[in-house]
Amino acid sequence: MPMSDKAADQIPDIADIFFAKQRINGAVRTTPVLTDPQLNTELGCELWLKCENLQRTCSFKFRGASNALALLDETGCKGDVATHSSGNHGAALALAAALHNRRAWIVMPENSVQTKIEAVRRYGGEIVLCPPHQQAREQGLADLVARGCIPVPPYDHGHIISGQGTVVVEMSEQIPGLDIILSPVGGGGLISGSAIAARALIPGIRVIGAEPEGAADTALSLRQGKRVDHFPVNTIADGLRAIVGVLNFAIISDNVDKVITVSEVGIVEAMALVWQRFRMLIEPSSATVIAAILASPGDFSGQRVGAIISGGNVDLERLPFKP
Amino acid sequence: MPMSDKAADQIPDIADIFFAKQRINGAVRTTPVLTDPQLNTELGCELWLKCENLQRTCSFKFRGASNALALLDETGCKGDVATHSSGNHGAALALAAALHNRRAWIVMPENSVQTKIEAVRRYGGEIVLCPPHQQAREQGLADLVARGCIPVPPYDHGHIISGQGTVVVEMSEQIPGLDIILSPVGGGGLISGSAIAARALIPGIRVIGAEPEGAADTALSLRQGKRVDHFPVNTIADGLRAIVGVLNFAIISDNVDKVITVSEVGIVEAMALVWQRFRMLIEPSSATVIAAILASPGDFSGQRVGAIISGGNVDLERLPFKP
Repeated sequence: MPMSDKAADQIPDIADIFFAKQRINGAVRTTPVLTDPQLNTELGCELWLKCENLQRTCSFKFRGASNALALLDETGCKGDVATHSSGNHGAALALAAALHNRRAWIVMPENSVQTKIEAVRRYGGEIVLCPPHQQAREQGLADLVARGCIPVPPYDHGHIISGQGTVVVEMSEQIPGLDIILSPVGGGGLISGSAIAARALIPGIRVIGAEPEGAADTALSLRQGKRVDHFPVNTIADGLRAIVGVLNFAIISDNVDKVITVSEVGIVEAMALVWQRFRMLIEPSSATVIAAILASPGDFSGQRVGAIISGGNVDLERLPFKP
Repeated sequence: MPMSDKAADQIPDIADIFFAKQRINGAVRTTPVLTDPQLNTELGCELWLKCENLQRTCSFKFRGASNALALLDETGCKGDVATHSSGNHGAALALAAALHNRRAWIVMPENSVQTKIEAVRRYGGEIVLCPPHQQAREQGLADLVARGCIPVPPYDHGHIISGQGTVVVEMSEQIPGLDIILSPVGGGGLISGSAIAARALIPGIRVIGAEPEGAADTALSLRQGKRVDHFPVNTIADGLRAIVGVLNFAIISDNVDKVITVSEVGIVEAMALVWQRFRMLIEPSSATVIAAILASPGDFSGQRVGAIISGGNVDLERLPFKP
């Protein structure tokens, strides 16, 4: 019996997130939280890192992918799954599919980083290389869907959103007395699920997003009161280059208090700081949350802040900071 | 009232380790454990990483230093503390001393890695630079002791050993059904404390050490039935270059089942594997435990293995593997 049958094009609620957590327990790691008293003194707030860089496939994406695959099983929906991705969602979908005894077809641009191609392959994914532009990626996916594959998009999808929201269920148990949940904003899968969970579980919580100036479509959409569907993207934060999704923007509009935009220099400085203090290499996308605290300390002063470190898939050969 | 007054030159028992755990709770992080089912299948064992690379100061050394400092407080022993170190013990002692409102003087070779000098300074340590040889380091420390500083050695010391043993108390709670505790072997502080805790807490446990071929003094000492005090050291594992301590060797002789020696190539391959699968950069010293499993799979086949990842203080500019 399925625990939840809300359709993928609907906005999930906290019950869907709890169902998701039940479904993915066992497959997904309960990732650790870390705080550093000395750094807290310097920052003027109590900062807790929720380490999704230590999640399986090394990003939070495995939560949503695991929930989507488990729901396909529950609803008796058979067949291979497919997506296009140059990054973390592809790897996550590949592993989740393998664990559910399905094949996953991942359309990847020919110029993808070699280690990311190898990761998808290691997790059991079937790779379809395509020319490196959006149209070719979408065509590649359309071809797979025409052949019967089930598309599993990276963020604009209720089951993905409810899976990502499980990270805040864990945080609410691991870090008592949270004042602020702080999340990167890209397509909006992570922050939208997180915001739904935070509103339901943590009285008085503020939810703040961090977005690169070079991909600040969500901040612009919020200012305009309407989702923009084009933005000239230019940022080192490769996980945040997507335009915010339709479902995601609706959730963000209602549940996110503020989106702070951060500079490229700020992102790189934040990566270096996390390496220096925690000896963790985190993705530029993840570093946006630390950059937001450094850029706008007044928003965090004296607060207990749970910052989601979204992933750790860094290209070691192209580190943007000097250690 | 002191919880334990066993002298520093005596071998601690499990009670001392429990007392140590009470003392250092709050200061020390309960570090996470990670396992990867796919890697387990490939290795033929159930491997759990105990992530002391995510400890404060980024190594297990903070456990022992915290216990030693807390015991100085308890026993009313006042004054500054001092040690010589080019690495993790110095940083750990600096932070532990700062938290106990004491000054720590760290004698460091002039050619120490700049980031390690900066870390000691950031944790509040006073640095005394000396020429880069053993005699100068010992003379530097002797001078400090002559001026009234309390020496806190890195491993051959009961309070340090009992502090390090707390890592296995945590492991015994975090990973039920452990068959093997696997630890790097350098001076022997970590493995000796771990072995005492493991014998007391985990029925039927085997304790295995991993030691670089280029610093295999403990394996040689065990073969000869007598601690050697010289060994031609040549290994990338900078944390394991010390000769095993006197107390440490006595404990290891009685409580460690086996020490596996690993090659330099094996250490580097293990570092790369942990980066690839967990996106954690671990010290070469830590990678010895993974190298031991790869080098001697028969010792681990079908077993549940708790491997202590001792630290994460890697020099990013001189990574020994190609990502």
